[in-house]
Amino acid sequence: MRIAEFGLRIENGMTMDITNLMTPAFLVDLPKLKTNIRNMKERARLHGVCLRPHVKTHKTAEIARMQTPQEASGITVSTLAEARFFQKAGFDNITYAFPITPNKMAEAAELTGRMKHFHILIDQLETVLAVEAYGRDNNVCFSVFLKIDCGYHRAGVDPSTAESIQLAKQMHASQHIIFRGILTHAGHSYHCRNPEEIIMIARQERDVMVEFADRLKQHGLACETISVGSTPTAIHAPGWQGISEIRPGNYAFFDKFQSDIGSCRLEEAAATVLTTVVANYPQRHQMLIDAGALALSKDPGAVHLDDEIVYGAIPGYPHLKLFDISQEHGLITSEASIACDDFPVGSLLQIIPNHSCLTAALFPKYHVVEGNRVVDEWRPMRGW
Amino acid sequence: MRIAEFGLRIENGMTMDITNLMTPAFLVDLPKLKTNIRNMKERARLHGVCLRPHVKTHKTAEIARMQTPQEASGITVSTLAEARFFQKAGFDNITYAFPITPNKMAEAAELTGRMKHFHILIDQLETVLAVEAYGRDNNVCFSVFLKIDCGYHRAGVDPSTAESIQLAKQMHASQHIIFRGILTHAGHSYHCRNPEEIIMIARQERDVMVEFADRLKQHGLACETISVGSTPTAIHAPGWQGISEIRPGNYAFFDKFQSDIGSCRLEEAAATVLTTVVANYPQRHQMLIDAGALALSKDPGAVHLDDEIVYGAIPGYPHLKLFDISQEHGLITSEASIACDDFPVGSLLQIIPNHSCLTAALFPKYHVVEGNRVVDEWRPMRGW
Repeated sequence: MRIAEFGLRIENGMTMDITNLMTPAFLVDLPKLKTNIRNMKERARLHGVCLRPHVKTHKTAEIARMQTPQEASGITVSTLAEARFFQKAGFDNITYAFPITPNKMAEAAELTGRMKHFHILIDQLETVLAVEAYGRDNNVCFSVFLKIDCGYHRAGVDPSTAESIQLAKQMHASQHIIFRGILTHAGHSYHCRNPEEIIMIARQERDVMVEFADRLKQHGLACETISVGSTPTAIHAPGWQGISEIRPGNYAFFDKFQSDIGSCRLEEAAATVLTTVVANYPQRHQMLIDAGALALSKDPGAVHLDDEIVYGAIPGYPHLKLFDISQEHGLITSEASIACDDFPVGSLLQIIPNHSCLTAALFPKYHVVEGNRVVDEWRPMRGW
Repeated sequence: MRIAEFGLRIENGMTMDITNLMTPAFLVDLPKLKTNIRNMKERARLHGVCLRPHVKTHKTAEIARMQTPQEASGITVSTLAEARFFQKAGFDNITYAFPITPNKMAEAAELTGRMKHFHILIDQLETVLAVEAYGRDNNVCFSVFLKIDCGYHRAGVDPSTAESIQLAKQMHASQHIIFRGILTHAGHSYHCRNPEEIIMIARQERDVMVEFADRLKQHGLACETISVGSTPTAIHAPGWQGISEIRPGNYAFFDKFQSDIGSCRLEEAAATVLTTVVANYPQRHQMLIDAGALALSKDPGAVHLDDEIVYGAIPGYPHLKLFDISQEHGLITSEASIACDDFPVGSLLQIIPNHSCLTAALFPKYHVVEGNRVVDEWRPMRGW
C-alpha cells in the first residue's frame, strides 16, 4: 500500500509516523497481529487442544507473551539460541523442535536444569545412544520427543517401520530419557493449493500420529503428548481428536505464501516491509525501491502455484510486480505502464513478504504500528 | 568438506579447532581471503586503475582494512548504515553506491561533513532537484556521481538518451552538487555462462562509460572519475583504458555462483558455512543438516546454468546435493545412496554458499580460520 510521500512528521512527542522511519523497515501491524493471535487461541480452545506456539517466526519475547496465557505455558523454538533467549525472558516450558546432535547436548543439559520443562527431539538410534551416554556421564535426564515423519519427508522416523517402535522402546528403557511423546510437523501442507488440500494433510497429520500412538500402546509404550502443527494445518484442521498440542508459528504474521495457499487472506498479513521509491524508469515500466534481498529474503514464495516468481505482494497495486531483487535493490515492473506521477521518488510502499519468518530474521528491530503510527519497537534475537 | 566427527578439543589455550564451534557457523578461510584480496589488488595495479572495493559483501572493518592500502583510500558501501559504521572505523573516503532518496539526505549531509570524501549517486532529475533544494536549505554541497545504466537495466540513466546529458548539465550547474563523475555496475555479468561472455560484458561496461564521458566532454562537461565494477568483469576485463576505478566486492569471499560462471575456481571460495549432520535417512538417500535458509539464504544460485537448484556446494562430495532448505533445516540428497557410515550423526560438513554476500549477512559473527584452527572472530555490521 502506498502510504504517503516523504515528509518528517513527529506527532505527540514520542509518537512517530511511519514516514519518519528509515527504509527499509520491518513493520508489525499490532491490531492484525493481535487478531491473528486471538483467532489461533480460539481455534485451539474450541477444539480442546493445547497451543504451543512456535516463536521462530518472530523471535521476540513481546509476541511470545501475547501468544501464551502466561510465561509458564509452552512455546516452541527452532534453535538453542532461541531457547536461551526465551528462558532468560522468563519462559519455563520450551520444546526445542529440531533434532538434537552431540555438539548441542551440553547446552541442552544446561537448559534442562534451568527450566521446569525443556524438551528435545530425537529421530535416530545413534542419537538415542549418544543422549543416553551423555546423560549417564553427566547425570542428566532429558525430556525427549520422538520425531515422526507424517509425510513431509524432511526429519522424523517413518512410523510404519519396525525402527520407529524400536526407537520408542529404546527411549522408554533409558535411565536418562523421559519419553515425553511423539511430535511431527506437516510441512508438506506448504505444497497445497487450497484449503481442501490442506484439510487432507491435516487429517493425515492427525491420523498418522494417533495411529502410531496406538501402535506404541500395543507395545506397552505410553505416550503422554502427541504434538502436531504447521500454520496451514492448524488453520484448516477439522479437529484434533486424540492430539495433545499444536505448534503453529507463522500465523502470528502470516505472509504472501500463506495467503496464496489459502491459510489466510492477504489483508491478515501483519508484517510488511516499508520501502522507498528510489527511481522511476518509465521507458522500461520499472521503478527501483530500497528493499532488496537483505530486506525481503530471496524466498521465492509458492512456486508450485505460479511460474512467475515475485518477491512479495504490494497490496492495492496488483499490477506492480517485484520480479527482481539483489542485495539492496528491488526492481518493480508494472504490467501496465507505471504512472510515474503516482509514485514519485520518495514515495513509500509496503510489501507483504513471501515468507515472513525469513524476512523478519533480516531486521535488527521491528517497528510496531497502529495504522501509520509507530507505537513501539521490538528487538528480535538472532543467531545460534 | 567433511572435517571430523564431533569432539571438543581446545588447543594451546585460546586457539580453538572448528570442531569446537556451535553450528551453523560462518567460516572465513584467512589464507584464501588474503589471496583473493592480493590478486585483485595486483590486477588493479597491473592495469593502472584504482580499486575501491565494495564492502557490502563482508561488512567488517577487518576485511575492509585488508582490501585497502590505508583507511583514507576509497571503499564502496551499499547502505547508509555501512557508511556510518566504516566512517566510525576510520574510513574517510566512501562512495554510497545506491541512489539517494529524500529520506536519506540528512544522514548523507552529516556523513559529507564528517569525511574527507563522501560520494552519493543520482539517476533521476527529481532527485537532482531534491538534492539541490536540500543543499540550499541546509548549506551543504554534496559530491555526486551520475549513475549510468551500462546494460544491466536495474538502476541508472540510459546514456544514449538526451535525459542523461540533461542530468549531467543540471548537476554541473548546481551550487550544491560537485559533479564527481559517472558510475555504473555491470550486474548483467552475473547472467554470463563463461569467461568469454564476461569479457564481452566487461568491454561493454568500459566502452559505454568511456563513450558517455566523451559525449559529456563534447557538451563541455568535465568528468573527473569514471567508476565501473562487478566481480565478474573485474576478474576478466582485458583492461580498463579510460576508466578511473573499479568497485568489485564479492571477490573477497567468492562463492558457488562466481565459480559456476567462471569468475573463480570453487577452491578459491573463502567463505563457508560449517554445519552438523543431524540425521541419516538411508531409505530416501537423504541426510539432515543444521544449516537451513537462515544460515545459507535462499539465493538459488546461477539458475541460468542449471535447472536444478541446490543451495550451495559441498566440496569433495559432488554427489551430495542440498536440494531443500527451510528455516533451520537443510536436506541433503545423495545422487547415489549415501553411505551413512561416512556421515554419522555429529559429522561436520562445510558448504560453499551460492551467494556469499547474502549468506554472510545472516551471521552475527564470522569465525576466521587457518585450516581447522579458529584464529579470530569478526563481527559484521548489519541493518540500515
